[in-house]
Amino acid sequence: MRISPEIESLLSLLSRLPGLGPRSARRVVLALLKNPQGKMLSLAQALEQAASTVKTCSVCGNVDSSDPCLICSDPTRDQSVVCVVETVGDLWALENSGLYRGSYQVLGGVLSPLAGQGPEDLNSRSLFHRIEEGRVKEVILALSVTVDGVTTMHWLQEKLKPFAVAVSQLGQGVPMGSTLEGLDDGTIAAAFAARKVVNG
Amino acid sequence: MRISPEIESLLSLLSRLPGLGPRSARRVVLALLKNPQGKMLSLAQALEQAASTVKTCSVCGNVDSSDPCLICSDPTRDQSVVCVVETVGDLWALENSGLYRGSYQVLGGVLSPLAGQGPEDLNSRSLFHRIEEGRVKEVILALSVTVDGVTTMHWLQEKLKPFAVAVSQLGQGVPMGSTLEGLDDGTIAAAFAARKVVNG
Ligand SMILES: [Zn+2]
Ligand SMILES: [Zn+2]
Repeated sequence: MRISPEIESLLSLLSRLPGLGPRSARRVVLALLKNPQGKMLSLAQALEQAASTVKTCSVCGNVDSSDPCLICSDPTRDQSVVCVVETVGDLWALENSGLYRGSYQVLGGVLSPLAGQGPEDLNSRSLFHRIEEGRVKEVILALSVTVDGVTTMHWLQEKLKPFAVAVSQLGQGVPMGSTLEGLDDGTIAAAFAARKVVNG
Repeated sequence: MRISPEIESLLSLLSRLPGLGPRSARRVVLALLKNPQGKMLSLAQALEQAASTVKTCSVCGNVDSSDPCLICSDPTRDQSVVCVVETVGDLWALENSGLYRGSYQVLGGVLSPLAGQGPEDLNSRSLFHRIEEGRVKEVILALSVTVDGVTTMHWLQEKLKPFAVAVSQLGQGVPMGSTLEGLDDGTIAAAFAARKVVNG
């Protein structure tokens, strides 16, 4: 395609973003090119602003423009409950559901012998620091139900045993609105294992 | 969602781009946040570069960083053939197919009585200017096969009659690799109208 190097490099950067490919990158650039001084520059500035302000929260590992993050410094949230998640994306998904009003611990991954990821690679120190200071009453383990996720939850359970904190795990089973067809074997197995008597 | 205003406004801008929604905007921002000083700033700079260099080509209406655009100033392309398209997106689609080695005229739209879009709203002047100067031998009408697109092609055919240029239109019919099921009525009608005797 005969196109200016400036547009070419923009297309190339965009097409490597998750969920975008060459075709959708072209659609995005065409939309931005309709208003280069408006939409396009606003997006450039928003990216710069975000890049220059983002920090990792020293309390929970969340990404935000303040440290501690907005969640850790929110007095209306229950800081004595900590939900342990794998990634900031998981935190966002939970925040988006609007269900949860406690705090988080973002591990940044799970234990993975295959990927050479050990306990020292996880962001768990600040969780135990909070627990040792007596600021935590309950820990909710919300890691993904994969081999590595389950291993990591077991490891955390062991590490949490010496402390007087309640430890729980998210319920496992068939997702709401979902049929069995299309679920992976692990989810079906977990749903069977978690079956409940419903006739008293 | 409790999130920094900087990330919030980035999410909001991204989620309004074509093909993206709140969910895919979050995925994109999470990917960029993994490397704020790298990926995120590169994208910001690429957007700024593109915004500050884009121009509309005075010959054909293409968007590029030079005027005339790279296509209009390419001596290896046949400048005596002009393919008339609706948008820069159509031009990109044709360029991407690699099939066409002539030049373009980007109308920027089609005649549309309903949308109040008349001849004076189309970028056609530079096409007739090129023709009057004797630089054009053939005009290919490649507008979309919609009521407005067909009206616009008829209008152009009339306007081109006084000139000694060959005028052609893209073949219409069933797209390659496509079944009739799933095609819209207009395409099926055009395919019928364009049917050819194949048994001699
Ligand atoms: Zn935090
Ligand atoms: Zn041009």
